[in-house]
Amino acid sequence: MRMYDLILKKRQGNVLTKDEIDWMIREYTDGRIPDYQMSAMMMAICFQGLDKEETYELTMAMAQSGEMLDLSGIKGIKVDKHSTGGVGDKTSLALTPIVASLGIPVAKMSGRGLGHTGGTIDKLESIPGFSTQLTDEQFEEQVNSIGVSIMGQTKNLAPADKLLYALRDVTATVDQISLIASSIMSKKLAAGADAILLDVKTGSGAFMKEKSEAVKLAQEMVDIGKSAGRKMTAVITNMDEPLGMAVGNILEVKEAIDTLKGNGPGDFTELVETLASHMLMLGGVAEKFDDAVSMVRTTIRDGKALAKFKQFVAAQGGDTRYIDHPELFEQAHVIEEIRSEQEGFVEHINAQEIGICSLILGGGRETKDSQIDPSVGLVFSKKVADPVKKGDLLATIYGNEEEKVRQAVKHFKENFHIAKDQLEKPQMIKQVLS
Amino acid sequence: MRMYDLILKKRQGNVLTKDEIDWMIREYTDGRIPDYQMSAMMMAICFQGLDKEETYELTMAMAQSGEMLDLSGIKGIKVDKHSTGGVGDKTSLALTPIVASLGIPVAKMSGRGLGHTGGTIDKLESIPGFSTQLTDEQFEEQVNSIGVSIMGQTKNLAPADKLLYALRDVTATVDQISLIASSIMSKKLAAGADAILLDVKTGSGAFMKEKSEAVKLAQEMVDIGKSAGRKMTAVITNMDEPLGMAVGNILEVKEAIDTLKGNGPGDFTELVETLASHMLMLGGVAEKFDDAVSMVRTTIRDGKALAKFKQFVAAQGGDTRYIDHPELFEQAHVIEEIRSEQEGFVEHINAQEIGICSLILGGGRETKDSQIDPSVGLVFSKKVADPVKKGDLLATIYGNEEEKVRQAVKHFKENFHIAKDQLEKPQMIKQVLS
Repeated sequence: MRMYDLILKKRQGNVLTKDEIDWMIREYTDGRIPDYQMSAMMMAICFQGLDKEETYELTMAMAQSGEMLDLSGIKGIKVDKHSTGGVGDKTSLALTPIVASLGIPVAKMSGRGLGHTGGTIDKLESIPGFSTQLTDEQFEEQVNSIGVSIMGQTKNLAPADKLLYALRDVTATVDQISLIASSIMSKKLAAGADAILLDVKTGSGAFMKEKSEAVKLAQEMVDIGKSAGRKMTAVITNMDEPLGMAVGNILEVKEAIDTLKGNGPGDFTELVETLASHMLMLGGVAEKFDDAVSMVRTTIRDGKALAKFKQFVAAQGGDTRYIDHPELFEQAHVIEEIRSEQEGFVEHINAQEIGICSLILGGGRETKDSQIDPSVGLVFSKKVADPVKKGDLLATIYGNEEEKVRQAVKHFKENFHIAKDQLEKPQMIKQVLS
Repeated sequence: MRMYDLILKKRQGNVLTKDEIDWMIREYTDGRIPDYQMSAMMMAICFQGLDKEETYELTMAMAQSGEMLDLSGIKGIKVDKHSTGGVGDKTSLALTPIVASLGIPVAKMSGRGLGHTGGTIDKLESIPGFSTQLTDEQFEEQVNSIGVSIMGQTKNLAPADKLLYALRDVTATVDQISLIASSIMSKKLAAGADAILLDVKTGSGAFMKEKSEAVKLAQEMVDIGKSAGRKMTAVITNMDEPLGMAVGNILEVKEAIDTLKGNGPGDFTELVETLASHMLMLGGVAEKFDDAVSMVRTTIRDGKALAKFKQFVAAQGGDTRYIDHPELFEQAHVIEEIRSEQEGFVEHINAQEIGICSLILGGGRETKDSQIDPSVGLVFSKKVADPVKKGDLLATIYGNEEEKVRQAVKHFKENFHIAKDQLEKPQMIKQVLS
């Protein structure tokens, strides 16, 4: 087999076979196909696409390029969850203790964030003492004893995807739906869960700006998962404005704790309840969505979800006093309130640009080696469709350097728009696919 | 400027500016843009194309990436000629002495062949003593004194094209018309002639199998040349069967000598007369095509073209006794006659596959380092549309190894087709563009 022939085949719009895809991924991972041939192939795929079979085979080849996690030592139906990411996305923090408290075993691998704020791992590590460096045995044992564990992603999970993503990232070949779907799903399949819930975001702060594209991506991922024998559900959710009120690592942890106490913001609470309910259905704990929602609300109201979170934090070495008293968390030094200069209704908050505010303040990573400042970020007081009077507080900026705060305030104002006319609250849950 | 942005721009179907193209070619030639980004760009170009301006700018950027030959020390209008190549193409050998004998200065750089038979340089070097390693001064002096010189291609002519072509060759991005046009024209423009005649082949033995594609390529090259201030003519010619009767280095040199003596095969003579006539018009020696043809026929009939060839061979150290007595040339040892097993008319001779026969015999290069055996090849006795009787000689195979000759004979028979019905002689000159 020659890579040249495969590139030509794809360029001409033909379908690659399983053998060809397996060979290509194996040879590339082993360094026997040079980057310049693979990048030509990726560009050809951007124009000619991959069909359902090809997408599945590519996903499997990448999943099998490294370690495939064996979760069979963990009792019950393991349900994993993946979000395509956005601004203010602290969902895993609230979601996992909720479903664990209702009997769904959560054995989750998470990544660090490269972007506006940290990833789930970064957020958890802002709780003093919390460790995400577990051995496979510790991980499995913890899930079996308390029902939940989150660890940093094993290095050797889908290494082919890691190589390929790095190449696509510098050759303008990232935004092809089948390639995105196979990249996400290769890691999810390698991570070993029986069922997978996908939270596919759409809007100004999401990778998929258009809902139609988000639906397409979700459907491809659902198809891949089903072909691989997994139970799958995908929920298309709003990321046109930031999620919840808080953006920034510690600020988001605090908001997750509030939500577990039943005091979370409306949009975030709705998202968490919906995703948790679908996880309960995937895990066989509930049959009907309405029943699942009731179970979720009950476990929050009864304090069981919060108790599970504390148990989880304690199990991984975290100081649970911070959960009971979030005011103990480190505070940013420079706090600036942004107030409205006009009257009307919030028309649009550009989620991606609000993410940039967090980045400016030091809350995210520009490169892999950047250090995150966990205390910085911003908290909204108004969200889209809220009525605003002159002088009303719109948001509070938390930073540690005056100059950066000045820049962030300026950037915030440019991306927070108030209009005269009233509008409808944006819909959080846009579609459910399975 | 970032290569990522340029790749994305082209992927999205936008037009690259002169500055962007200049920057890209300069940075790539200097090794500051990696191959994996350039191959993604080339693949994007295969799908989105280049417009006329982009193609011109790419050509100029590549031409200017190395030495630009200065032929101003040579008197008169310098006319260069380029053929897109085929099987049995010994055109330059006959053409250059003809036009030189009529006052067109020929200062030609030629390449070695990578393919079925050698290139012009290989064919000339099969004349004992002939050298193509000239200094720039020797080259210029010879053209000024006798009107013609052919030297091996300077290494530093359009180095960007050399790098880019090597990359395209392994990433299935060769056959994009604007890229082919800019590759050919970058070298031709760097070679410094005032006017350029293009011989664009079409048919089974040519790179452009379809005439419409050949016309498109020719038009793009003519447009580039004109934009660069050169006088341009392109002739679309037949390469559906091999050119002339001989295929193989020494065999082709002999056929070129026969043609200069007025005894060449009909199709080859027609091609040489036509191309020579267009060169006379480009060089301002003739105004009308018919007058030019008469001049060409006269210079052959009067022996002036042959005399110029001998003068040229002598000037570059070649032994002219071989020109007067071609029977002196080294002969192949294994000679096999192929005779017809049926009656009818020659229907098709697959030129590319006949080229493979020559390659099997050792007459071409499979890799850059292959050694050519100059004596091997084949000579046709029948060409397309010729009537054939049972037992008629179709061709004679010349080889030096029995096994290779056996293989070549087998391959020949599979690609030489005889039909019952009479057909028309193929048209040699298909179209002229300027």
